[in-house]
Amino acid sequence: MTNIIATPLDTDMHQRLNAVEASVVLYTDTPLNLNSGTTLGPVDVAYHTYGRLNAEKSNVVVVCHALTGDQHVVLPHPLTGKPGWWSSLIGPGKVIDTDHFFVICSNVLGGCMGTTGPRSTDPATGHPYMLDFPVITVADTVRVQVALLDHLGIDQAFAVIGGSMGGMQVLEWAAHYPERVFCALPIATCARYSAQNIAFDEVGRQAIMADLDWCGGRYLLEGRIPHKGLAVARMAAHITYLSEAALTRKFGRKLQGKDKVSFGFEADFEVESYLRHQGSTFVERFDANSYLYITRAMDYFDMPSEYDGHLAHAFRNTPVHFCVISFSSDWLFPTRDSQAIVRALNAAAASVSFVEVQSDKGHDAFLLDEPEFHDTVRGFLSGMSERRGLSFVREAP
Amino acid sequence: MTNIIATPLDTDMHQRLNAVEASVVLYTDTPLNLNSGTTLGPVDVAYHTYGRLNAEKSNVVVVCHALTGDQHVVLPHPLTGKPGWWSSLIGPGKVIDTDHFFVICSNVLGGCMGTTGPRSTDPATGHPYMLDFPVITVADTVRVQVALLDHLGIDQAFAVIGGSMGGMQVLEWAAHYPERVFCALPIATCARYSAQNIAFDEVGRQAIMADLDWCGGRYLLEGRIPHKGLAVARMAAHITYLSEAALTRKFGRKLQGKDKVSFGFEADFEVESYLRHQGSTFVERFDANSYLYITRAMDYFDMPSEYDGHLAHAFRNTPVHFCVISFSSDWLFPTRDSQAIVRALNAAAASVSFVEVQSDKGHDAFLLDEPEFHDTVRGFLSGMSERRGLSFVREAP
Repeated sequence: MTNIIATPLDTDMHQRLNAVEASVVLYTDTPLNLNSGTTLGPVDVAYHTYGRLNAEKSNVVVVCHALTGDQHVVLPHPLTGKPGWWSSLIGPGKVIDTDHFFVICSNVLGGCMGTTGPRSTDPATGHPYMLDFPVITVADTVRVQVALLDHLGIDQAFAVIGGSMGGMQVLEWAAHYPERVFCALPIATCARYSAQNIAFDEVGRQAIMADLDWCGGRYLLEGRIPHKGLAVARMAAHITYLSEAALTRKFGRKLQGKDKVSFGFEADFEVESYLRHQGSTFVERFDANSYLYITRAMDYFDMPSEYDGHLAHAFRNTPVHFCVISFSSDWLFPTRDSQAIVRALNAAAASVSFVEVQSDKGHDAFLLDEPEFHDTVRGFLSGMSERRGLSFVREAP
Repeated sequence: MTNIIATPLDTDMHQRLNAVEASVVLYTDTPLNLNSGTTLGPVDVAYHTYGRLNAEKSNVVVVCHALTGDQHVVLPHPLTGKPGWWSSLIGPGKVIDTDHFFVICSNVLGGCMGTTGPRSTDPATGHPYMLDFPVITVADTVRVQVALLDHLGIDQAFAVIGGSMGGMQVLEWAAHYPERVFCALPIATCARYSAQNIAFDEVGRQAIMADLDWCGGRYLLEGRIPHKGLAVARMAAHITYLSEAALTRKFGRKLQGKDKVSFGFEADFEVESYLRHQGSTFVERFDANSYLYITRAMDYFDMPSEYDGHLAHAFRNTPVHFCVISFSSDWLFPTRDSQAIVRALNAAAASVSFVEVQSDKGHDAFLLDEPEFHDTVRGFLSGMSERRGLSFVREAP
């Protein structure tokens, strides 16, 4: 296990943040058993921690990232330089206060930021796995996260939190490791991935596979990168992260640096320019095969099917306290998906609170500075901290 | 002008239908003036007629097709063999009864089924236009349709009807040629194309342009076809034609001819298989460059902008009678888009009826056998026929 300080501790804030960028090799003796029936090992796990673990190891917050996220939750992303994807929510004095909590986030299995995925070297061949990487599930990803906590000697996470595919992981944690989770916050997510979402994923995959530079998945060996296909996949997906209201408010029919349309195919409209930018920046930081594998893991996510169609059975007698959050304009994971989770939790007599945050920002709202959302998380964590009798190790600022 | 009977008159129904497949060359002396400021000519116009023109030439129904439609409204499509795209609505004894009405539908300007488009030969070079084809607008398309009616010696259409981009054409007819239209039925459409719709169009265009076989638009000269890119464009667009409810009802998470998932990237789910099929059949009948041009025409559609933002001014003192129809689950052209049209028509003191059809079938509903939709059209046309004093030439069945 190597600990690397990713960013120079040049400010008080960074010192308080106590960011640690680390990676560990797991499943070296016994390989990981996957849902597909195959095994995988060894498995590199790249992760970040923020804050300090208290003596009781009771202040751990596990953050689960979404499809295109990674462990750079608070620290700037090394490839884009942009702020960490949840730096609005997490940090010293923030909603998830790293002065109080010890935050852990690992790159998902199949990812491309250090955790073993299709770009990693297959020890059997010495080449990247590419399409020889096994198809993984959300449950497999969570299995690795639990193994990471074992490795760190942490019995129970105080909270597990995540949005979108991160929320699916939260549900897996609560269902399969209830004794390892005190409270769970599945946000803007679902227990059963919808036909429409599978359809959008399939469009993205076909866009990647249509790119001749994908080379049947072997682009790394051919020295090529399916930039165009991956950009199209990102563009299509990005529309689903927003709402029509947000697109209209943000862009409407505004033209990009011109007074009138060009009567051509350049980006006349700001929304076109914005989408093209989303596509072209994404390909700099993401691996096309990882995109295939992680979307496939989401397609396969169907918790009720594990329990003969009864989601409530996944949470029978659960000790976990839940806070389910949805956003009113999210059409990728609409509120009714969260309501289905809440109904199941109620039927399982679980402790659950539910908030539908009013927002016109679509699915993306969970990544943004939405006051009602942040207030909800803050209030829930505060109440749960009290109930858990959390003794914080407070550091001088 | 050549008249070709497309289908052998082997049944009574076909005889009653009196289908005529025709084409005409217009703008031979004076070219067509386009919104872009350029000109185009001559212009081939491919069209179908169904039914018989009455002596007063007062029973004409102009049908305007959508992005990927064409003039094969009732007759089976020559390339796919599928029934005409509005054969549920139009035909002998149907809602738009070809025993009473004389139906005309022409392939849009920029199309690929006989009307001049990017695949047509540029008389200046002897090669296909390809990207030298001028960017056209919905107004340009309607200009050609009006010229076709001039050519046929028809002063006024009894009705102009169309859904989606066809509805945009209906609005253009009513706004710019009010004396040529007795009644107008804009269906599942808008007066101002939204940022979200531009965004989806742009994804489709980028998917096509990302295909190396597109060859910078010159694929016809290179003997190649950007099948994969066009298929991805179609797949992405097709999702927007449906609704989540329809996708869930029709497919849900049903597997395609298997009991369990494959843990691979083949089409495990029926919805994937369906989408792939939509993509692969589309490329057999549609031209990739036409797709670029026609989506661009939609992007540019913004009637209020022609009237300083006041759509009502487009219809001031209009003699046209309107029937505006939307579908409750249509998220591509949601009901609020139709309401904006109705508000403008009300402000212009126009004669307008408005129905939001309750349907969970999404935008596609306008192409389907939706009883409430069909009843609405039937009732409106019946009332309008009476008001117009239409004398039908009834034929023996």
